Amino acid sequence: MKRVLSGIQPSGVLHIGNYFGMMEKMIRYQEESDLFAFIANYHAMTTVQDGELLAHNTLETAAAFLALGLDPEKCTFWVQSDVPEVQELTWILSTRTPMGLLERCHSYKDKVAKGLIPNHGLFAYPVLMTSDILLYQSDVVPVGRDQKQHLEVARDIAIKFNNQFGEETFTVPDAEIDDSLAVIPGIDGQKMSKSYGNTIEIFTTKKKLKKSVMGIVTDAAAVEDPKDPDTSNVFAIYSLFIGPEEREALRERFKAGGMGYGEVKKELFELIWERFEPNRERFDSLMANPDEIRDILAKGAAKARVAAEETITKVRRATGLIY
Amino acid sequence: MKRVLSGIQPSGVLHIGNYFGMMEKMIRYQEESDLFAFIANYHAMTTVQDGELLAHNTLETAAAFLALGLDPEKCTFWVQSDVPEVQELTWILSTRTPMGLLERCHSYKDKVAKGLIPNHGLFAYPVLMTSDILLYQSDVVPVGRDQKQHLEVARDIAIKFNNQFGEETFTVPDAEIDDSLAVIPGIDGQKMSKSYGNTIEIFTTKKKLKKSVMGIVTDAAAVEDPKDPDTSNVFAIYSLFIGPEEREALRERFKAGGMGYGEVKKELFELIWERFEPNRERFDSLMANPDEIRDILAKGAAKARVAAEETITKVRRATGLIY
Repeated sequence: MKRVLSGIQPSGVLHIGNYFGMMEKMIRYQEESDLFAFIANYHAMTTVQDGELLAHNTLETAAAFLALGLDPEKCTFWVQSDVPEVQELTWILSTRTPMGLLERCHSYKDKVAKGLIPNHGLFAYPVLMTSDILLYQSDVVPVGRDQKQHLEVARDIAIKFNNQFGEETFTVPDAEIDDSLAVIPGIDGQKMSKSYGNTIEIFTTKKKLKKSVMGIVTDAAAVEDPKDPDTSNVFAIYSLFIGPEEREALRERFKAGGMGYGEVKKELFELIWERFEPNRERFDSLMANPDEIRDILAKGAAKARVAAEETITKVRRATGLIY
Repeated sequence: MKRVLSGIQPSGVLHIGNYFGMMEKMIRYQEESDLFAFIANYHAMTTVQDGELLAHNTLETAAAFLALGLDPEKCTFWVQSDVPEVQELTWILSTRTPMGLLERCHSYKDKVAKGLIPNHGLFAYPVLMTSDILLYQSDVVPVGRDQKQHLEVARDIAIKFNNQFGEETFTVPDAEIDDSLAVIPGIDGQKMSKSYGNTIEIFTTKKKLKKSVMGIVTDAAAVEDPKDPDTSNVFAIYSLFIGPEEREALRERFKAGGMGYGEVKKELFELIWERFEPNRERFDSLMANPDEIRDILAKGAAKARVAAEETITKVRRATGLIY
């Protein structure tokens, strides 16, 4: 069974864009492969410098993934910094990573070009990412197209290392780049993203959820007018929550006219509220008992550490740290 | 009592230039302060990529320092990588270290200017050095003038961190820059350095020691000629091993003439051989029982770890890694 590694940014509350973009894939991986999923809090530190916020986001993100179906019995789920061996490997790999390889990384160059004053962590990010991947001997790493180059860096470093110390040192990872991933539109029609302020959050109050859904931007068509489903955000978001037959029926209602946007948004709101009802209960229960989350994560870290120890011991021996 | 931190490069065999340059200071620190001395094997990895060599050099360097009088009862003496917490702190500090601060470091720029193809470890070196210093809450760090800028980096990072998380987070270290340090000449008159191949090794065979000492470069003065002590390498090196009165007498013998260089070199060879006799015995005994060295270093690492744990726990809490 292939080991699939997935790092989760602890960005706090999840929205339905995250859910359909990532969560469904996670569930599939945990059923079909040896999923190693971690909350990437060391990575998040490169941008989140408020300690309380980071700690809170870590817990909340863990609760959200657990509430949405990540099953710690079926996968290995932990917080990155609970296996700090990854930082020792990061250093070891750093001493074998040509500066040029990092200097060519677009992701860093883009951030600097946008005027960000970069810290060293941001520059070293691809080495830590490589260390995450190699420490756990990952076969497959699902990434967005923007991370493709970082996967190439990881492969380069792994191959170079294996050339010196033997093929059995590191599994050379394969990227799994998913271009088919639907872009979920936000309430304003742009890609749903926290930074655009156009999200529909999953774990929120009924009032706030209603406000988000009712705020979906529409055209000025009157109730009686026929409406174009293919250009409608309401239709696009609604479609995520229904099957093909219901989707066809909804399409017909749009085209027929006589249905107001307000009416269909209200339906959508009810649908979303009900759909995530059990998840919301689980989420609230976890957030009310953070020690339960911590306990699950501690067990996950213990599982992850077994894999990490095997790799780091091998690497320490090969590079002369064991004397 | 001030804590003094000193990192020792595991460069293998020690020569008398190392001894008079560093060892005497070490002995003084362990008597007068809370000396934390470590073998900097993580740092060495930036240039030594042969694992067996690094492991061997680590053991040999430890044996040499112990044989020459570093006393594990009076100081804390360990191998850097035996307290890997330093790497976690390195990452945390990296996320608070502006790239510009590292890009301005002369030591790195000089190496690149000399045509070295740099690895990322070499670039990140000042952050690891900062981490060494701050993890152990060091008050004083004795450094050569070439390391002064790195100490400034460490101070900058510590001050910035303390501004955010409180003055008690890190001790802001002071550099102790020793310009008075005599440059010990090698057998060719240049500064004694392994890279110049002009060293007189301490832990070597009688035959090799004799060869080194007899190879000290002299002028062409005949036996009967008066000789200038102030331009003589033989006189300079001999002077290291004798007191002021004997030095005066030697000076007179040089000036009087009638004494051949060969004769005085033979005396010097005997002097060096006898001077390090007890150290050589201890060194040989340690190298014959490497487990004794490992045991001493393990105890040292356990002592160092107590200090390290206190700092890393505080920092993990402040930066939100404890959730």
